[in-house]
Amino acid sequence: MADTLTLGHRNFTSRLLTGTGKFASNEQIRPMLSASGSEIITVALRRVDLQASPQDNILTHIPDHVTLLPNTSGARTAEEAVRIARIAREAGCGDFIKIEVITDMQYLLPDNHETLKAAEILAKDDFIVLPYVMPDITISRQLYDAGAAAVMPLGSPIGSNRGLEMKPMIQRIIDTSRLPVIVDAGIGRPSQAAEAMEMGTDAVLVNTAIATARDPVQAGKAFSLAVTAGRMAYQAGMAGSSRRARASSPLTGFLQE
Amino acid sequence: MADTLTLGHRNFTSRLLTGTGKFASNEQIRPMLSASGSEIITVALRRVDLQASPQDNILTHIPDHVTLLPNTSGARTAEEAVRIARIAREAGCGDFIKIEVITDMQYLLPDNHETLKAAEILAKDDFIVLPYVMPDITISRQLYDAGAAAVMPLGSPIGSNRGLEMKPMIQRIIDTSRLPVIVDAGIGRPSQAAEAMEMGTDAVLVNTAIATARDPVQAGKAFSLAVTAGRMAYQAGMAGSSRRARASSPLTGFLQE
Amino acid sequence: MADTLTLGHRNFTSRLLTGTGKFASNEQIRPMLSASGSEIITVALRRVDLQASPQDNILTHIPDHVTLLPNTSGARTAEEAVRIARIAREAGCGDFIKIEVITDMQYLLPDNHETLKAAEILAKDDFIVLPYVMPDITISRQLYDAGAAAVMPLGSPIGSNRGLEMKPMIQRIIDTSRLPVIVDAGIGRPSQAAEAMEMGTDAVLVNTAIATARDPVQAGKAFSLAVTAGRMAYQAGMAGSSRRARASSPLTGFLQE
Amino acid sequence: MADTLTLGHRNFTSRLLTGTGKFASNEQIRPMLSASGSEIITVALRRVDLQASPQDNILTHIPDHVTLLPNTSGARTAEEAVRIARIAREAGCGDFIKIEVITDMQYLLPDNHETLKAAEILAKDDFIVLPYVMPDITISRQLYDAGAAAVMPLGSPIGSNRGLEMKPMIQRIIDTSRLPVIVDAGIGRPSQAAEAMEMGTDAVLVNTAIATARDPVQAGKAFSLAVTAGRMAYQAGMAGSSRRARASSPLTGFLQE
Repeated sequence: MADTLTLGHRNFTSRLLTGTGKFASNEQIRPMLSASGSEIITVALRRVDLQASPQDNILTHIPDHVTLLPNTSGARTAEEAVRIARIAREAGCGDFIKIEVITDMQYLLPDNHETLKAAEILAKDDFIVLPYVMPDITISRQLYDAGAAAVMPLGSPIGSNRGLEMKPMIQRIIDTSRLPVIVDAGIGRPSQAAEAMEMGTDAVLVNTAIATARDPVQAGKAFSLAVTAGRMAYQAGMAGSSRRARASSPLTGFLQE
Repeated sequence: MADTLTLGHRNFTSRLLTGTGKFASNEQIRPMLSASGSEIITVALRRVDLQASPQDNILTHIPDHVTLLPNTSGARTAEEAVRIARIAREAGCGDFIKIEVITDMQYLLPDNHETLKAAEILAKDDFIVLPYVMPDITISRQLYDAGAAAVMPLGSPIGSNRGLEMKPMIQRIIDTSRLPVIVDAGIGRPSQAAEAMEMGTDAVLVNTAIATARDPVQAGKAFSLAVTAGRMAYQAGMAGSSRRARASSPLTGFLQE
Repeated sequence: MADTLTLGHRNFTSRLLTGTGKFASNEQIRPMLSASGSEIITVALRRVDLQASPQDNILTHIPDHVTLLPNTSGARTAEEAVRIARIAREAGCGDFIKIEVITDMQYLLPDNHETLKAAEILAKDDFIVLPYVMPDITISRQLYDAGAAAVMPLGSPIGSNRGLEMKPMIQRIIDTSRLPVIVDAGIGRPSQAAEAMEMGTDAVLVNTAIATARDPVQAGKAFSLAVTAGRMAYQAGMAGSSRRARASSPLTGFLQE
Repeated sequence: MADTLTLGHRNFTSRLLTGTGKFASNEQIRPMLSASGSEIITVALRRVDLQASPQDNILTHIPDHVTLLPNTSGARTAEEAVRIARIAREAGCGDFIKIEVITDMQYLLPDNHETLKAAEILAKDDFIVLPYVMPDITISRQLYDAGAAAVMPLGSPIGSNRGLEMKPMIQRIIDTSRLPVIVDAGIGRPSQAAEAMEMGTDAVLVNTAIATARDPVQAGKAFSLAVTAGRMAYQAGMAGSSRRARASSPLTGFLQE
């Protein structure tokens, strides 16, 4: 049986979601997608300008087989997020929507309650809803009840590259959530992506760390390998850590006998 | 130019060293080597019994293209390590030798001074010397002077799966060492292997975590991907972490304008 | 000018809040309060039984000069928390109320939104409102707007002794909050209490770690010293950490000159 | 029975050792000692100039009841350390000696083997020997055999304020050492000093963090309280941490019954 990530009615092979922000040139997006194998890419609706010339239109740089995940960045309330989502769908961006509602302009941390309200409305409106939230198991349960397709707790602030700052809380979400868990934001190294996957996370979204690398294509490949490695380790049934040493070679005196 | 690991006069493509200890069955070693692409495998001389039947002889399970790295486990002094190394060479195990001198039977931590003494003798005797040591930049410098081919600081105690417990000290060794640095012992997860490689480690040795996984072949593959991911990230020039958030999508109010 | 903690209209000298739960005997509470100097103690309204005999009534064990902080434990909604708070005030427990609204029975993590709703109602009703919340700077800002007297983010789950699991998020709350910040829950060691105070936390609440120590009176004293030490360090203007060593003794060769 | 620290033939009440380096003015040393209660202070022999005027002579600033702990900073070999120790004793600085042998000028990390050699010689010469070492349980055992009075593993590099970077290794030393363990170097916050004491460390030496604080006298007091708090917690028998929450207040629905 294939190991697939299911979001809404769709199955995906890759567990690495990527984003379109911060690339030095939009020309890097297509080879990055190819190298990373990412099948879902998030894009701020602001960047989608259907009246732009093709090379300026970011959608031009995304192959057809890659699912577009428009996000509601810029929204400060549930209502604004809902409006942005509907505009995106009308503009032909599809049914997937990443809800971002942010009122904290210093650390860009999400407003969980407004996000939940938007999720309720958009799920009823047949969107595939992926909400970006502070790690919180109460909100995770409520998002399930609201009909979201996944829960996307942050690892650390957007673009900080600080990794799984909230690791124990994310573990609790994984252990209790009935929705797929996608760690979004703050993942700055392949090792951090692998760590998230080893914990049982279903997928990770990485944007800044790839886009700002000196070589974004190679970085995309590195994250892809790390996500696969972490997933394989999760499935391979690895032993836990131990406070003691455990010899891997025989230690009885070799020469004394 | 290929990205190779050079030890002594030999170049290697894989940066994952493996070991022969703790497998449920020696039959798992060959497919694990194949899946992981590991080109160097350590074996306790104790396990090498040339008078054994082929299926009991551990060397039977190691393909010819894989370099044998006999280790001196069981040695409690420099002198014993030297004797074991010479027996290994005479037995046809080649010129590579991993020096392990351990007197602490509780945590199996190496005795740096005896290890250094053995390294001096064996390097003069034309061995390719890989010494397993407590992370210590003074010892690392002395091992270079002694003619060692690499320095192998431990991440954490053997078999503990605790990862880079001594991370800052290992970073200092990487930053100052003129020898290749191979993190040996304690690496229990692919994410930890990737982390070591991202720091600039030249290679890692993983035995227990692979051998004790429910599926050692898949675990070997997972570690291989993680080591490659970490190496690629090191080379891709990734940005450092930040205390602040940095937006990846435009955050100016979308709808207000 | 004295260094006081102000909550509502009241000033306190001690920055260590304690609790009445989990003591082997209620007889330990009075000497613990004396040893720790704690001036505020939380009590579950369930434990306050005015019809009980004096030795069974927990209030008997709390000296008059110590401020009672009834909590709403057992509440699963804002409405229930409001009802408990009013019963507590009518029962003579005063105006202070610690809002706890918990629906997650596995990790006992608070429901931030219900807590905020209860805080709005109780603050209008002239309570001194101390709400126990998941660390979240959006909620912290909203609690200020709601008229709360402080914000009480958790360090880690109640009774877990895991300390500042959410440290970076708590630092962000301290840096942005206009309310006093009291770290509540999970503080299991004096060092963890000191660490919270060094970060700029205004006070800490410690219950389980004191009550379950073999010697709760000595533990109370230890936490008191640690809180004072952390506060003094915060005020003493200590230098930050450095990636480099900085000699404290002259290192130029002593004998060479 | 009093809880005393025994070094050589001497008993001490305070478990906070301090140092004379880096103060903005030597006039701060005496009030810092008074505020901190420290009974042992280290001084680089370089700073002891018996021909200097009294206010320039650092010894003038150390009260008679405080034990002088000359250190061998500047030594790069065992032989140099031995010579400095003897000069110190001849100059009237007493029998205590802190051995520092450092050849790594970047991170100021000690050379364990040279330190051990100096310890053997000086212990036979009736010094009270306190050797500053990389955390290493093999060296700790050898220092016991050599007649040292304590072992002083570093927490992190001198003056770095990074705290217990090597925490698990220091715990192993505490668990196995037959000598008192004094954590020296890198302790930058009272919380870190308390943490060391909670682990079972016998004492800590703090210099840079106190001397470079804006208010060194208050900082000395803060460290003193933290050391006492950590020691009391160690003795008070506190519970370990738990992955689960454990309610401190009754959680059965308050109002439902």
